[in-house]
Amino acid sequence: MTGSHLDSQPKGGKYDGAYGVVGGFEALEAIERAGIETRRPIELVAWTNEEGGRYQPGVMGSGVFVGDMNFEAQLDILDRDGVRLGDALAETLASTPGIARRSFGFPIASYVEAHIEQGPRLENENKTIGVVTGIQGMCWYIVEISGDEAHAGTAPLRSRRDAAKAAVSMVSALEELTADETDTVRFTVGRFEVGPGSPNTVPGSALFSIDLRHPEARVLEKLMAEIEPVCRANARGCDVSVRRPMNTPPIVFNSTMVDVVRRQAGALGIPAMDMPSGAGHDAGYVSRVAPTAMIFVPCAKGLSHNEAESATPSDLAAGAATLAACLVELADKG
Amino acid sequence: MTGSHLDSQPKGGKYDGAYGVVGGFEALEAIERAGIETRRPIELVAWTNEEGGRYQPGVMGSGVFVGDMNFEAQLDILDRDGVRLGDALAETLASTPGIARRSFGFPIASYVEAHIEQGPRLENENKTIGVVTGIQGMCWYIVEISGDEAHAGTAPLRSRRDAAKAAVSMVSALEELTADETDTVRFTVGRFEVGPGSPNTVPGSALFSIDLRHPEARVLEKLMAEIEPVCRANARGCDVSVRRPMNTPPIVFNSTMVDVVRRQAGALGIPAMDMPSGAGHDAGYVSRVAPTAMIFVPCAKGLSHNEAESATPSDLAAGAATLAACLVELADKG
Repeated sequence: MTGSHLDSQPKGGKYDGAYGVVGGFEALEAIERAGIETRRPIELVAWTNEEGGRYQPGVMGSGVFVGDMNFEAQLDILDRDGVRLGDALAETLASTPGIARRSFGFPIASYVEAHIEQGPRLENENKTIGVVTGIQGMCWYIVEISGDEAHAGTAPLRSRRDAAKAAVSMVSALEELTADETDTVRFTVGRFEVGPGSPNTVPGSALFSIDLRHPEARVLEKLMAEIEPVCRANARGCDVSVRRPMNTPPIVFNSTMVDVVRRQAGALGIPAMDMPSGAGHDAGYVSRVAPTAMIFVPCAKGLSHNEAESATPSDLAAGAATLAACLVELADKG
Repeated sequence: MTGSHLDSQPKGGKYDGAYGVVGGFEALEAIERAGIETRRPIELVAWTNEEGGRYQPGVMGSGVFVGDMNFEAQLDILDRDGVRLGDALAETLASTPGIARRSFGFPIASYVEAHIEQGPRLENENKTIGVVTGIQGMCWYIVEISGDEAHAGTAPLRSRRDAAKAAVSMVSALEELTADETDTVRFTVGRFEVGPGSPNTVPGSALFSIDLRHPEARVLEKLMAEIEPVCRANARGCDVSVRRPMNTPPIVFNSTMVDVVRRQAGALGIPAMDMPSGAGHDAGYVSRVAPTAMIFVPCAKGLSHNEAESATPSDLAAGAATLAACLVELADKG
């Protein structure tokens, strides 16, 4: 089985990144043109709603397939305009000839998903294939800080409970905590808000978010255990609340499968490197029920979820060739 | 001349802090009751619109008196409801018996203004009188940072141009720059905003404000010269723009006048300390045309511009007694 999805569903309505689907068809055609017969059937899947752009959550197709999400419940989800997913799907199916209803949850011998990297590592390292070793774990935190509003001109600094400066101290300390030589940890503060937000008032409240990711559970858990203590140690007299609204542990792909991708790229003479996936993918769900691998190709400047998303034809072809070679090896096993 | 104004004009419409006026009347009454005759006349002034709550800018009465603001132009300023200051003033004058028109800009031998501290230093140091040595200088900066938005999961940290982390670095470095043992510098970051403000997007933009104050021009200028270089040194690859929308140099009160307050508080046995004013006052304008002093009394927890503003009767009486003693000394001079 080879998986795929529509990568990009930007606001403009473009669908630039359907590499998994088109690359999968290219691989299947190449196998057929070469007259190769395999012991196992090969199927192509275009998962429903990976991005979660119109219907939330994303990776819904694979979530239902592996039994993590309830099928009927997903069909009842509404988009922003109140359109039920089940109705939108029925309309798409009715207007698309040749689509037959397929059951889900059937056994799969192995699964390979091709994808653009959505990051700049392959481009930076001048490699064409990313041998995806797994999907890094991710957790989100919301840190809320409560101090005292005060007059910027009169309140001595030592008497202040300045929520903004406490937040700055926390983020600085968290940067130190998460610094690593290999540049593998992903530590992002995407929200940073202070109140009341007046230049001559010492902020009495602050809030920031943490998006923390790492491919290794051991490393991620060690960092996670330090988040709240580091925030508290830098509270500078303010009150602190630390919540963790999301925690998705890392996924490590089957090493035999990863080795198939690495070996086949090598056999084709394509420059390749091992790397974890920074973003989530349907492969994450599928890896729960079948040996799974992913193949990354470079995308310009690492841009994704953006109309400027772009990959070169030769890189896309190299990815499809690697996919075809992997499928032949995997489908030929007893 | 003794100056005063209505301290607090909070949203609720309360006027808790008319200490300058009431304290001034108390001092004049005490002088009269004691049968003291002075060589010079003593006048009490209730300046129009010190706070700038209803009409902007504030300290308008003293600004016009010393010739810094144009009288007619101020009368044409409108409040939020479109009511002209000139009309509002005329209405007040018409409904207040006994007010005679007075010229402005006439010569003053000396000026003393009583005020609550609006900060916590007197309370913290257990002193009753603040001998105000001047009004600290103040400047505002707006720092804008432009980086690149990026995917929180995929973009390696070393390749990011993270506007939020650059802003955090700048604020940390500015805290180091402005740290002083005497706790005299006032460095406040009242605004701190990042965009687009999504937990899983590396911020491509950030903005923060700086409110920097110090009573000594030399110290303030030295710090001001470092603001932009420190921001640029911590830009971490981002573009930076630094604006300074406000710059008001420090005011140092006439040392003979300051000495009168210090000496008279001492003679009355009232615990006093020298201190600069953290906030602006009418005394700032008046000091341009006459030897000027201010007398501070403690206010609970340093709160001001707040309905919780509060001062004890005994502290207020001590301030009025000091004011009366100063007025007698100053008005008795040849």
